Amino acid sequence: MTTEYDDGRLGRARVSDTPELTAYYDELAELEAGALWTVANDIEPWYPQPKSVPVLWRYRELRPLVRKALDLVKADDAGRRVVMLVNPGRKDVSAAVGLLYTGLQIMGPGEAMTAHRHQAAALRFVHEGTGAWTIVDGQKLKVGPGDFAITPNGTWHEHGNESDEAPVIWQDGLDIPLVNAHDAGFYEVHPDLYQQPGKVINSSLLTYGANLLPYGAQEWSRPYSPLLAYPWEPTYESLRHLARATEGSPYDGVIAEYTNPVTGGSVMPTMGAHMQLLRPGQATRAHRHTGSVIYTAAKGHGYSVVAGQRFTWQQGDIFCVPSWAWHEHHNLDQDEDACLFSFNDFPVMRSLGFYREEAYTDNGGHQPTA
Amino acid sequence: MTTEYDDGRLGRARVSDTPELTAYYDELAELEAGALWTVANDIEPWYPQPKSVPVLWRYRELRPLVRKALDLVKADDAGRRVVMLVNPGRKDVSAAVGLLYTGLQIMGPGEAMTAHRHQAAALRFVHEGTGAWTIVDGQKLKVGPGDFAITPNGTWHEHGNESDEAPVIWQDGLDIPLVNAHDAGFYEVHPDLYQQPGKVINSSLLTYGANLLPYGAQEWSRPYSPLLAYPWEPTYESLRHLARATEGSPYDGVIAEYTNPVTGGSVMPTMGAHMQLLRPGQATRAHRHTGSVIYTAAKGHGYSVVAGQRFTWQQGDIFCVPSWAWHEHHNLDQDEDACLFSFNDFPVMRSLGFYREEAYTDNGGHQPTA
Amino acid sequence: MTTEYDDGRLGRARVSDTPELTAYYDELAELEAGALWTVANDIEPWYPQPKSVPVLWRYRELRPLVRKALDLVKADDAGRRVVMLVNPGRKDVSAAVGLLYTGLQIMGPGEAMTAHRHQAAALRFVHEGTGAWTIVDGQKLKVGPGDFAITPNGTWHEHGNESDEAPVIWQDGLDIPLVNAHDAGFYEVHPDLYQQPGKVINSSLLTYGANLLPYGAQEWSRPYSPLLAYPWEPTYESLRHLARATEGSPYDGVIAEYTNPVTGGSVMPTMGAHMQLLRPGQATRAHRHTGSVIYTAAKGHGYSVVAGQRFTWQQGDIFCVPSWAWHEHHNLDQDEDACLFSFNDFPVMRSLGFYREEAYTDNGGHQPTA
Amino acid sequence: MTTEYDDGRLGRARVSDTPELTAYYDELAELEAGALWTVANDIEPWYPQPKSVPVLWRYRELRPLVRKALDLVKADDAGRRVVMLVNPGRKDVSAAVGLLYTGLQIMGPGEAMTAHRHQAAALRFVHEGTGAWTIVDGQKLKVGPGDFAITPNGTWHEHGNESDEAPVIWQDGLDIPLVNAHDAGFYEVHPDLYQQPGKVINSSLLTYGANLLPYGAQEWSRPYSPLLAYPWEPTYESLRHLARATEGSPYDGVIAEYTNPVTGGSVMPTMGAHMQLLRPGQATRAHRHTGSVIYTAAKGHGYSVVAGQRFTWQQGDIFCVPSWAWHEHHNLDQDEDACLFSFNDFPVMRSLGFYREEAYTDNGGHQPTA
Repeated sequence: MTTEYDDGRLGRARVSDTPELTAYYDELAELEAGALWTVANDIEPWYPQPKSVPVLWRYRELRPLVRKALDLVKADDAGRRVVMLVNPGRKDVSAAVGLLYTGLQIMGPGEAMTAHRHQAAALRFVHEGTGAWTIVDGQKLKVGPGDFAITPNGTWHEHGNESDEAPVIWQDGLDIPLVNAHDAGFYEVHPDLYQQPGKVINSSLLTYGANLLPYGAQEWSRPYSPLLAYPWEPTYESLRHLARATEGSPYDGVIAEYTNPVTGGSVMPTMGAHMQLLRPGQATRAHRHTGSVIYTAAKGHGYSVVAGQRFTWQQGDIFCVPSWAWHEHHNLDQDEDACLFSFNDFPVMRSLGFYREEAYTDNGGHQPTA
Repeated sequence: MTTEYDDGRLGRARVSDTPELTAYYDELAELEAGALWTVANDIEPWYPQPKSVPVLWRYRELRPLVRKALDLVKADDAGRRVVMLVNPGRKDVSAAVGLLYTGLQIMGPGEAMTAHRHQAAALRFVHEGTGAWTIVDGQKLKVGPGDFAITPNGTWHEHGNESDEAPVIWQDGLDIPLVNAHDAGFYEVHPDLYQQPGKVINSSLLTYGANLLPYGAQEWSRPYSPLLAYPWEPTYESLRHLARATEGSPYDGVIAEYTNPVTGGSVMPTMGAHMQLLRPGQATRAHRHTGSVIYTAAKGHGYSVVAGQRFTWQQGDIFCVPSWAWHEHHNLDQDEDACLFSFNDFPVMRSLGFYREEAYTDNGGHQPTA
Repeated sequence: MTTEYDDGRLGRARVSDTPELTAYYDELAELEAGALWTVANDIEPWYPQPKSVPVLWRYRELRPLVRKALDLVKADDAGRRVVMLVNPGRKDVSAAVGLLYTGLQIMGPGEAMTAHRHQAAALRFVHEGTGAWTIVDGQKLKVGPGDFAITPNGTWHEHGNESDEAPVIWQDGLDIPLVNAHDAGFYEVHPDLYQQPGKVINSSLLTYGANLLPYGAQEWSRPYSPLLAYPWEPTYESLRHLARATEGSPYDGVIAEYTNPVTGGSVMPTMGAHMQLLRPGQATRAHRHTGSVIYTAAKGHGYSVVAGQRFTWQQGDIFCVPSWAWHEHHNLDQDEDACLFSFNDFPVMRSLGFYREEAYTDNGGHQPTA
Repeated sequence: MTTEYDDGRLGRARVSDTPELTAYYDELAELEAGALWTVANDIEPWYPQPKSVPVLWRYRELRPLVRKALDLVKADDAGRRVVMLVNPGRKDVSAAVGLLYTGLQIMGPGEAMTAHRHQAAALRFVHEGTGAWTIVDGQKLKVGPGDFAITPNGTWHEHGNESDEAPVIWQDGLDIPLVNAHDAGFYEVHPDLYQQPGKVINSSLLTYGANLLPYGAQEWSRPYSPLLAYPWEPTYESLRHLARATEGSPYDGVIAEYTNPVTGGSVMPTMGAHMQLLRPGQATRAHRHTGSVIYTAAKGHGYSVVAGQRFTWQQGDIFCVPSWAWHEHHNLDQDEDACLFSFNDFPVMRSLGFYREEAYTDNGGHQPTA
């Protein structure tokens, strides 16, 4: 341990137990009290000490188990038929990393779920299947592979798969652990069990065109995006265009955030989402920041180094970066670009004044790996 | 005059001149003072009393004169070779309506203007010619018919026409009268006379894709849009999509505002701009609002009724709506949609708390015309 | 003329009249059009060219005339009995400077005016008399010498003087010329001629204590301060405290802005107001900025140099600083501080992106005077 | 259980274990995955299920133990000599309620602590002693009983007691559990161990007077209040004034939030603080809301009913209200008002869109108590 982080320094708590103190602590405990100095160094660490660890979930390993769930449980009994990804350090709160939850949901051909709403906000990233639909506060949306969609907190929602043939597997991202950490969870089943959607499919996609706001948009006052889905094709095309105009980020390549068109801000107040493009053969430099991120390989293959561990990914794989962990990304394809979808709690970090970022400066910006 | 607007009422100034008062007014004048009641009813009118009147400028009438300017003055001598449209009531301030200026600028094949910057903000709407380019703060943009582009206040800018054959005619919109009304005008010639543009053409168009914000966009802190051009095709396509999702405004049809992607707000703090689509045969209802508007027919033909006067327009025509004048729009084509581009001072109305709007309720929402 | 501001330079309009051009201009005029280059240099000046000039209005000169109005016109006939201060360069719009209006209003003992409301925003600064009251949107306020109060745009208001003995003279500041420049003026007489005030006098003063916001204040959504009056004593005390904590501004001494406690912003969207304290003998350095200011000497005596002209003031005197005019302030008392109240259109300058400021660097920051 | 909250309903997870499923869960566990339906009802509860319970800490019981700490540990060894108040349901994170920490800190005559800074934000409420001082980012403040002060996140701070005679006991409030829940904690010892304070004591108190913002305040861009202390006397006086102007809140009596004078918002982005006055004999009605609150009796005596439990308090006592717990307050003195200081995480609730509130409508707004 360096002097910098030495708990024996003046300025840190360094009181040893004595019989007298132990007796004193007992007295305090009787009054629902305690001595700060017995825990001070633990609860005020030098830098973040997440219990979350870096994890890679391979889609080819998870997929058979996800499909198995189709036979094992009825959708109506499960509520949602989801295999959740659980960080070994966060089993107590069912988090994939930090205060974020993620899982793979499967809907069989023709299935439809009942409608509910909850305080937790949700987002979807479609892995496979072409029949997926969702109804969010009465607006019916159809989404396909690579599409990103949101179910902002408090909105009624239900999903289904209108395909006759293939199941849909999409990834859910929710802030359930965040909501629970804040003792703010509510849940309601829709009084009619199902919503009556409006006639126009994908109406918010039709409404929020490129850099134009329609009549009435100024009245939108909810804290989330009125645009509820962001299809893959224009997203990918935008990144390709962006790659012609900019170098991008040294840490993330050509990266853009899905935004609320009414404010230019994040899609929801608790979670943001990005798509990033790594140029053929690109190796980004490492950085770290507060805030947790869940990545999904949307295109191509490569590897990321997280806290010194190398995680090799291909399309469909999911991995996480805990708060303050160094991370960098490598596209292993020398001819094709690779894309990573990700979602995070950066909006929370910024709202609460917690965001902090640092570049890895040694070794040309690349972490040594074991 | 109705009782409602009777200046003889208690609550209005109603002092008649007397010799004693006249002498008093002279005394006041010697001290650079005056009696409020002599002007109160004039300077605090019951409702807005713009000096601007509704005007239609026909493109087919103006075009020959605009082209004539090519031969009459050199671009270098004119600064900009522009035929400005001047409201009969606002000749003193060279305004087309209210505090807005507009004009038709022509650039001959191969011409290039010198660079300058000014406090006034400018916007462009291209009428004809395919060779137009503009460099705004080092960013080179190419614009064609129907495209909308901005030159925010204080940005260096220069323009030209790279065509070998045809001149470019575009419409300038500026807030020059607004800036002057506020005694806030500054002007500078570029020290090198010409800018050195960056290599990437249309870089802001490449950068601000559909509902995505790139890395670094959060740092944008200027009060105007970093996206500097809005081409016709995606704008028109967006309106067509919008028309499928919404009824639109009863007063404007399917209308959308060009927005700053970083904030969702107007493109500039002093001027906003819209494109609106009138369905085949659509006749909107009349309303009025504070704020002035300059319209340009971008597609199709129709007529608008402004303050009871009917103005028939076809593509390229320009007309204005003074503050608080009733207005409504009619698409005369029963098969094709029509489009009106417009720009306005609504951002000012909103910033200053001056915006007010009222629907015309008589006669099914349509004004009687002479 | 320096080269910098030479209208003969490349980059400025420099077209001389020819018979051919004169004929062309006539053709344009027939179409309600003109050639930009004939006016370009005038409407796009190198720097602001206000028509307003610096003026000092001496209270001891104005006061007798203001009092005379008591006898000459009935309050009910005058609407308001006000001697307005008119800038020689702005008589056409009844402005004291720029787009700001000011005047001295007198109310005799026991007088009460009828209620009205208008788009223009108003503010008051009390010169003399202890009986003044105002009712603003149902809230009755009592104000005395040195007090500052606001009547935000659109609020019903009426005034009076409950003293048995002495008249009240207060200074009105309004944005009437601004409202009219924007064609946004509305005016209404109260349907009942008089409001029914709430029981609690000065309720907003009781409500907005020091750096505390009461229950419900978060719901305040109007664009102006819910606190309607700022008495002299705590204002002066605050400046005295501030003088102990800070050097203040090199251009203004110890200066503070009256603020909307709910936002920390200016009291109204179109006008801001300040009180500033000049230490005994203090001579501030000169600067200039866009935006117009009307000053009132609230305490002490001194002089200000505006655009090279020296204006000596004592308590009650009023003077103006046009946009972009150099100005500096001198307290002539070596033992006592002096205070200047002022109001301005800075909120407009900032909203519209027009604010610009520059320090006078020659001669130790002091302008030469004739 | 009512039908409303029945986990057996369609729309909830209701899958029973089978051998097949158990085997499946094991397979999932090997991949760091799980079945959502096994935990869904727990992690998406019908309404908040805080582990925190209501607690009252009596000052007369805690005080002897707090004083005892003076002898038991040296300030330099303890870091800070604090008896923390620990909720029985939140011992794992050292929280008094929800994600808030509180404790009673004692500083002996003449003591001074070393300087540090951390991501966690802190606030102080002084219980006893007149010698307390704190230096926050170089600004020295003196605080006495009833004063509220803040140490915003990331600011260097150190404290001490300049009295020769009596110790200081103040209450610390921190968001340590919040910071840790978000994996965002940082801590630094000051490189020089002690700061060099500026010469002016209480400079921010002198700077932020009543509803005035000084020159330069517009440049303040940090997410917390530049005003660092709010003394008892003007706070209490403000509430007394407020009581004359308003009924106050039915749930809280006459209540006001300490605010950031530059924005009108909460003092810090993670914690807000209020002072409330209960009129003689006043019994407020019950309500509940998301967000946790820690109350300290600042004046008088009374009782509060929290989640049906009655807690009788007198000056100095501290109690907590967990998220979504019904609560109401009663002043037991029929002649004197009583005051409750409190701090909370409402700014977080609002930023994240989690704030929700509900009135207790039965029984005249009063909870039955055991």
